Amino acid sequence: MATAGKVIKCKAAVAWEAGKPLSMEEVEVAPPQAMEVRVKILYTALCHTDVYFWEAKGQTPVFPRILGHEAGGIVESVGEGVTELVPGDHVLPVFTGECKECAHCMSEESNLCDLLRINVDRGVMIGDGQSRFTIDGKPIFHFVGTSTFSEYTVIHVGCLAKIDPEAPLDKVCLLSCGISTGLGATLNVAKPKKGMTVAIFGLGAVGLAAMEGARMSGASRIIGVDLNPAKHEQAKKFGCTDFVNPKDHTKPVQEVIVEMTDGGVDRAVECTGNADAMISAFECVHDGWGVAVLVGVAHKEAVFKTHPMNFLNERTLRGTFFGNYKPRTDLPGVVDMYMRKELELDKFITHSVPFSQINTALDLMLKGEGLRCVMRMDE
Amino acid sequence: MATAGKVIKCKAAVAWEAGKPLSMEEVEVAPPQAMEVRVKILYTALCHTDVYFWEAKGQTPVFPRILGHEAGGIVESVGEGVTELVPGDHVLPVFTGECKECAHCMSEESNLCDLLRINVDRGVMIGDGQSRFTIDGKPIFHFVGTSTFSEYTVIHVGCLAKIDPEAPLDKVCLLSCGISTGLGATLNVAKPKKGMTVAIFGLGAVGLAAMEGARMSGASRIIGVDLNPAKHEQAKKFGCTDFVNPKDHTKPVQEVIVEMTDGGVDRAVECTGNADAMISAFECVHDGWGVAVLVGVAHKEAVFKTHPMNFLNERTLRGTFFGNYKPRTDLPGVVDMYMRKELELDKFITHSVPFSQINTALDLMLKGEGLRCVMRMDE
Repeated sequence: MATAGKVIKCKAAVAWEAGKPLSMEEVEVAPPQAMEVRVKILYTALCHTDVYFWEAKGQTPVFPRILGHEAGGIVESVGEGVTELVPGDHVLPVFTGECKECAHCMSEESNLCDLLRINVDRGVMIGDGQSRFTIDGKPIFHFVGTSTFSEYTVIHVGCLAKIDPEAPLDKVCLLSCGISTGLGATLNVAKPKKGMTVAIFGLGAVGLAAMEGARMSGASRIIGVDLNPAKHEQAKKFGCTDFVNPKDHTKPVQEVIVEMTDGGVDRAVECTGNADAMISAFECVHDGWGVAVLVGVAHKEAVFKTHPMNFLNERTLRGTFFGNYKPRTDLPGVVDMYMRKELELDKFITHSVPFSQINTALDLMLKGEGLRCVMRMDE
Repeated sequence: MATAGKVIKCKAAVAWEAGKPLSMEEVEVAPPQAMEVRVKILYTALCHTDVYFWEAKGQTPVFPRILGHEAGGIVESVGEGVTELVPGDHVLPVFTGECKECAHCMSEESNLCDLLRINVDRGVMIGDGQSRFTIDGKPIFHFVGTSTFSEYTVIHVGCLAKIDPEAPLDKVCLLSCGISTGLGATLNVAKPKKGMTVAIFGLGAVGLAAMEGARMSGASRIIGVDLNPAKHEQAKKFGCTDFVNPKDHTKPVQEVIVEMTDGGVDRAVECTGNADAMISAFECVHDGWGVAVLVGVAHKEAVFKTHPMNFLNERTLRGTFFGNYKPRTDLPGVVDMYMRKELELDKFITHSVPFSQINTALDLMLKGEGLRCVMRMDE
């Protein structure tokens, strides 16, 4: 492309300081260096993690910064050593990468790449420790290696999944974070068999994606657990057959679920990050074969505790990160599941705004309204 | 046989009260009723669980009682409805059964049979709630459905594994409890792949059986963990390549192991029952793919606790009971592993005494000497 090798000037939403509205600025985006790719973002969504680091309550403040990590785009140009991608390829940026060479990448099970594992404090590229974004020559920091709240961004090749160019980027952009996280927790880790009962704790976008995985697996009964009764109606679209609000019961919710299911559910997936919910999710699975999967990120001081007998009675507890998907290897297949209409994504998109209205998207999330707001960069 | 349908008088070691030496008595053994089998015991070993219920410290005292559950014998006669066994069959009694009809037996994963799951408080047969043992007409209670400290005993057909009659009962009798428990924890639950590193916590008979499973799996490095330095030498026969005594270190043993293994072991099996050891076993496995398995039975007040992040970094924690073996379905195959010389059993047998010297076997165990003492009933 005509822009290859040159600095591109474009619009980006810059977070100048914690908790202040994002500011639409003209930024300079440097050309990609070795093993890097410059991507034209077409659609980006907002995820809780963006908000979390924008608020920076207790997190290391890294400002000024371009947030954003759930997106879809097209390769504009590639740096030295990049052989797997060429300009024009459709890609999903991912906040955690896959170098394909470390012990984790070589393992069939892990996706915790040693080189490109998520790093929330780093605001620069790993190759040279520099930012590719500047405003009037002053660096603007990156976020989790993606920074998709920009019309153009530079990303390590290991953090880009090449996908079917026929796939609509305004939909499959959701797969670059939250939806894959919940979906994979069920499909790759909990692995319910057809006809099994599944409980999902926390019915935000990640929890509903975990529920979508249960629906796709042919679960016979899907129990949604949430403190907000308004979540019930929405969850029905995702296959929820029973709704339990812990506030409606005096006994612990795990006991309620064990009674409803004559001994416990076959699988449970926890998507809240609350330690009590994690304990409930584990203790509500059936002895002999029950598997509970933890997805939600807990506070630093949180403690998971239970009586060891709950394990000895042949229960399994596993945790997962990004649904155990290896970004480059596995995400193209998830896109294909959508293209084959096995995976339903459209129902996650409750709002859509032009990129210029990114603060509206932020407000919606802060108010807890809707599931995903997709922003259109070309407007 | 000539004795079928008749009461058999024979020798049995009776525990008249908690903690008092066992007393060799002549007992009457009634014929087996529906779904029951009368077995002539040829060899029986002593396991910690026998001692635990003989001491009855904190356990429901059920006396007078005939203890014993690790044994090998031959079917003498069968009750109504028993079709799978005939007189002369070689069998291993098991303290937990397999009805082959309940949800657990139908599950591929569970061995926690609803009907015949271990019950340590019940001293009678489940069919009619009566004991089959009497002395001068007064009932003597059963123990975990096996009561193998008797020349003849009556056992539910669901608690008997029919095995290869060529297998030496004085060796394979060990498979009816502890050795299968440890072995199965590794082979069926931890499932190390060839070349993996494995840590075993607690090097008693169960722990060494777990270690034997690691050796059979082709583990490249087997780390034994025990508070008793004397365990190291013995463990070498079971494939132990490294020994760690937590007392030799100021930092938590999980940190020691993580350092020794550059990130953690691939698999850990906990065979002590101590909650701290359980936590160490879990926290010493590698992120991304590590699996820890709990075998030891913890105290009622014990609590397993850890930071949820240890799960989220893709670690798995599972518990097991009797090595996840279904007694009737799976034990014959374990005996076959011994016959094919894949599984080494002889090294577990450190002592052998005539049945009449059962109190000597008890003393050895109380002193912590040796691994298994096999008693010969015909002497």
